[in-house]
Amino acid sequence: MGYTDFGGAYVGPTQNRVLRLAKELGLTFYYVNEKELSIDYRKGKRRMYQGTIPPVWNPLVLLDLNNVMREVDAFAKLVPVDAPWSAERAVEWDSMTVKEYISKACWFSCTASVMRLAVSSLLTSEPHELSFLSFLWYIHSGQGILRMANITNGAQERKFVGGAQQLSERMAERLGTRVKLSQPCIRVEQTQNGDYIITTKNNDHYRANHIISAVPQALLNRIEFIPTLPPLKIQLIQRIPMGSIIKTMTFYKTAFWRDYGCCGSVISHNGPVVYCIDDTKPDGSFPCIMGFVVADRARELCGTTPEERKKTICKHYVESFGMKEFMHPVNYAEKNWMEEEYSGGCYTSGMPPGVLTKYGRVLREPFGDIYFAGTESATYWSGYMEGAIQAGERAAREVLAAMGTENPSNIDPIEPADADVSDTFIGPSRLELMLPSLGALLTLSSIGGAVIACAVAYKYI
Amino acid sequence: MGYTDFGGAYVGPTQNRVLRLAKELGLTFYYVNEKELSIDYRKGKRRMYQGTIPPVWNPLVLLDLNNVMREVDAFAKLVPVDAPWSAERAVEWDSMTVKEYISKACWFSCTASVMRLAVSSLLTSEPHELSFLSFLWYIHSGQGILRMANITNGAQERKFVGGAQQLSERMAERLGTRVKLSQPCIRVEQTQNGDYIITTKNNDHYRANHIISAVPQALLNRIEFIPTLPPLKIQLIQRIPMGSIIKTMTFYKTAFWRDYGCCGSVISHNGPVVYCIDDTKPDGSFPCIMGFVVADRARELCGTTPEERKKTICKHYVESFGMKEFMHPVNYAEKNWMEEEYSGGCYTSGMPPGVLTKYGRVLREPFGDIYFAGTESATYWSGYMEGAIQAGERAAREVLAAMGTENPSNIDPIEPADADVSDTFIGPSRLELMLPSLGALLTLSSIGGAVIACAVAYKYI
Repeated sequence: MGYTDFGGAYVGPTQNRVLRLAKELGLTFYYVNEKELSIDYRKGKRRMYQGTIPPVWNPLVLLDLNNVMREVDAFAKLVPVDAPWSAERAVEWDSMTVKEYISKACWFSCTASVMRLAVSSLLTSEPHELSFLSFLWYIHSGQGILRMANITNGAQERKFVGGAQQLSERMAERLGTRVKLSQPCIRVEQTQNGDYIITTKNNDHYRANHIISAVPQALLNRIEFIPTLPPLKIQLIQRIPMGSIIKTMTFYKTAFWRDYGCCGSVISHNGPVVYCIDDTKPDGSFPCIMGFVVADRARELCGTTPEERKKTICKHYVESFGMKEFMHPVNYAEKNWMEEEYSGGCYTSGMPPGVLTKYGRVLREPFGDIYFAGTESATYWSGYMEGAIQAGERAAREVLAAMGTENPSNIDPIEPADADVSDTFIGPSRLELMLPSLGALLTLSSIGGAVIACAVAYKYI
Repeated sequence: MGYTDFGGAYVGPTQNRVLRLAKELGLTFYYVNEKELSIDYRKGKRRMYQGTIPPVWNPLVLLDLNNVMREVDAFAKLVPVDAPWSAERAVEWDSMTVKEYISKACWFSCTASVMRLAVSSLLTSEPHELSFLSFLWYIHSGQGILRMANITNGAQERKFVGGAQQLSERMAERLGTRVKLSQPCIRVEQTQNGDYIITTKNNDHYRANHIISAVPQALLNRIEFIPTLPPLKIQLIQRIPMGSIIKTMTFYKTAFWRDYGCCGSVISHNGPVVYCIDDTKPDGSFPCIMGFVVADRARELCGTTPEERKKTICKHYVESFGMKEFMHPVNYAEKNWMEEEYSGGCYTSGMPPGVLTKYGRVLREPFGDIYFAGTESATYWSGYMEGAIQAGERAAREVLAAMGTENPSNIDPIEPADADVSDTFIGPSRLELMLPSLGALLTLSSIGGAVIACAVAYKYI
């Protein structure tokens, strides 16, 4: 019997809490295959390359791409992860979309296209849907754009042997019967004593002094709070929608793409799958390509049947890999996260313009003795399993602090780096940092040109 | 005993359904006072004027404002009210915010400021929060920007004698005990026969063959549907947030502002109240200024107490009207719609970029025998009482059509114009239509200048 991860799956360096928890629970990892080359597929052309950044032959485009990625990382560092609304340019950045930024910052359509892919695959929303401030905050929380986009040494480096679900299962084992499954909370009522009565869908009742909610903020709409949530929270939870994704797994008889020198990774500028990765098990069994159908692509494919999607995706793989074998899968499985009423979408929430500066403060603000966790509320790797753990542990410590058994200054301690997972520096090289932007280069050229013209004029006139 | 309207209150020409319903229910109207002058308050300066458009002395600014308002109305007409996603420029307009449009279209900061006021007071959201396509759709549905902004001959022309609540009350009287109050629906379950069982919060059950939901789309999150809503609907209802408003009523001993030649209307470029109107009763009793605190201004004032808000607002009236008497109200009352869990905000929903083109199609799409009404789903005066009636009647006819007792081509008939409410043409005059835009003027001037320069050069060289 095999297993496959339809939810959160990948783990990488600097995600120290999930690495620690994995160790504690006796789980091990395997590396996602990236031995062979990756493919960048754009306008019907395939470019093979090693690593993260798609190959760019035109040196001007290279300067452009280098400049934009460097600038996004630099801007991201100016956004405090725990209070993004306090960034110096917060109001400006929160009143523009990521698309506006891309249009202004990119000189070449190719650069803009790479950025659009990066945004939609990292956040499962289109650039025009997202506040630029919220994007920068997300990038900062995920330790920079390269760290988030990479397989090797990045967020997609490794997967759990046996599947990520074991994290929850092993924690649940320890908690025993205290974990109640299939009992969504529908009401939280504060009594006159100040404690709470929780009602679940099947009309069970639980009494609690403190409550931690770990559902995405948008799902708080499904719970009746008595007394009602404060006005800004009532409005926030209408403004923090979950992203759009269908996670697909296409299984083949063999991992034949490796024989052609391809590792299985394709970044695709068009077609249904924005990004795919080899998902073959570490022992070589169940050869598989995992493909993310995100944002507008996911919404468009919502109207089709799984069988139609399978065909569309296989056809896309044939074209983007340039291998006819992709037309003949042995199995296909998918998870459309948009149809999950108790998720509302995946991987995480995306904020439209104006939300973070006006409502961000109430994201984690406790309401009485109700505390808010969930990866959407994290400040470190928000949107990832790491963020879910950080937020959960922070909320647990908030409760302990409220009970007087934890120091309030220690509710969100820095996690020590994992000793076994190498954390190689990732980010622009010294050369990349020093390369001029295209604008600067053109200015320099103009000045240079003018100086030469003057010199020539001086000599000949 | 007095009454005051904290919810929908105003009615104007072309809102023929609400006019018809009022007649049917025996309700009458009175005119909102606009006899005296209005005030435009900007950067500490007051400008008195008659009518809708704030006075602009600089002829270039006038050209600019004329051009932008004319263009918005012209663009709006290109957006089909029942299928805005099918507009030729739908994708472009839906991937930009209204702020982006304003930045590009306005030459003067004064023009941009007027547009920002218009957007935030019409939609209770800031321009950077709204898709330009959704804004154009809203303007088209409301018969143009001037019709929506005006008192006389516009959407704020008249109010119900005795209050707007009577509309609902008199309809409820006719329906008798079939109207259930304080019983929010929490579950809609389809049985194996295909009919539905509705569960209310106090655990009453109702059986139905057809259901009409008339709550704002965002509130559908609060209802459990079995089977679950389709994926695009699950995602839509997370992306259609209700606007932000505190509607305030400040009462005075006399309507002293009229003695100073002011009708009570102020458009304010800064301060808590974006727009205020005389709310004195038609017999002169209960002299009152109604003030809208909207969008960012409302969110900022959320953190204060009603008593603090009263003071802030009175101080603002003193400054913007230039009359000290405003500091001494005899009463103050307000409704913060953001704290209403069963509204989520007011007046209506605002769509961020990307929503209308990707999710707009499922706004009114029935789900089985569940039909969606509510003013947010209207195509004529959406967001207004008129829209609520249009949507409700359309949904009722959808049910009748499903039952076979209504012609499916007649589910949303055109409403005949009300015979008693004059519907004077409103919109740009022929002169205003012919005035050049500032860009065109500058181009013409440049060409003109060049021609003159050439002529001069020809003569003298």
